Amino acid sequence: MSSRWTVQLATPDDADEIADLLHDFNTEFSTPSPGAAVLAPRLRRLLAGDLTVALVAGRPAVGLALLTLRPNVWYEGMVALLDELYVVPRLRSQGIGSAIIEALLALAPERGLDLIEINVDEGDVDAQRFYERHGFANTETPESTERAFYYWRELTG
Amino acid sequence: MSSRWTVQLATPDDADEIADLLHDFNTEFSTPSPGAAVLAPRLRRLLAGDLTVALVAGRPAVGLALLTLRPNVWYEGMVALLDELYVVPRLRSQGIGSAIIEALLALAPERGLDLIEINVDEGDVDAQRFYERHGFANTETPESTERAFYYWRELTG
Repeated sequence: MSSRWTVQLATPDDADEIADLLHDFNTEFSTPSPGAAVLAPRLRRLLAGDLTVALVAGRPAVGLALLTLRPNVWYEGMVALLDELYVVPRLRSQGIGSAIIEALLALAPERGLDLIEINVDEGDVDAQRFYERHGFANTETPESTERAFYYWRELTG
Repeated sequence: MSSRWTVQLATPDDADEIADLLHDFNTEFSTPSPGAAVLAPRLRRLLAGDLTVALVAGRPAVGLALLTLRPNVWYEGMVALLDELYVVPRLRSQGIGSAIIEALLALAPERGLDLIEINVDEGDVDAQRFYERHGFANTETPESTERAFYYWRELTG
């Protein structure tokens, strides 16, 4: 798929811009955010390391994917969790999300990724269809009905 | 909760034993496994690093938790995914799994963990109850019904 939105790998210098997008994203969905002033220096540190990858669409950025990498015993390479995928409201449904996912899949070999994971809200059927179109699944086989729920426990506060 | 099963942090020297347990685990649940001979050297390498943590119950090990760590922009510390929690069949329902989870929660501060995550099969109600008893949730609030599904795409083979 072609896109007039160029997708680029972010550097630590993009931390401020990405922090603003992440804060806007959480604000839009009424999810707590520590604020861009907390996120920006953290992102600057994370993007300087090997375990955090951000892809941005457009300059200034109008779309963002944020991934974190970890090892896994079942794979020789790394596993990446797509923590966030965000497109600014005024530019949705124009293929920017797809362009970002395609850039991610193109980047995967050089980053040694063997698996990409995403947690998708049960009620967000549009997002589920989007990821399924891009080759993601929530069952071992197309015939299987056994999905998995994401559970967590916070240890802060 | 007390337990006669001592839970210890694994070292690279435990790689062979853990590889055998992981292989047995996948065999029991008819999940593909590359075999202990592939898993053991990989585990030896992973356990020598900072991003993989294994806890073993008993010597020789009769229970195992395997976790992988990654950073996350929403937390100052690290996020750990509980990739595997396994107790040998003959010793289930004796509190070994709970002893391992308690040891994990006790270890979390020194490893700088701010969040622990687990993907639990939709049909595995026993496991869901187990994790809920240990403070894990699959919704933002007890009143919420919005859960999240785990999606993935393999990039190998």
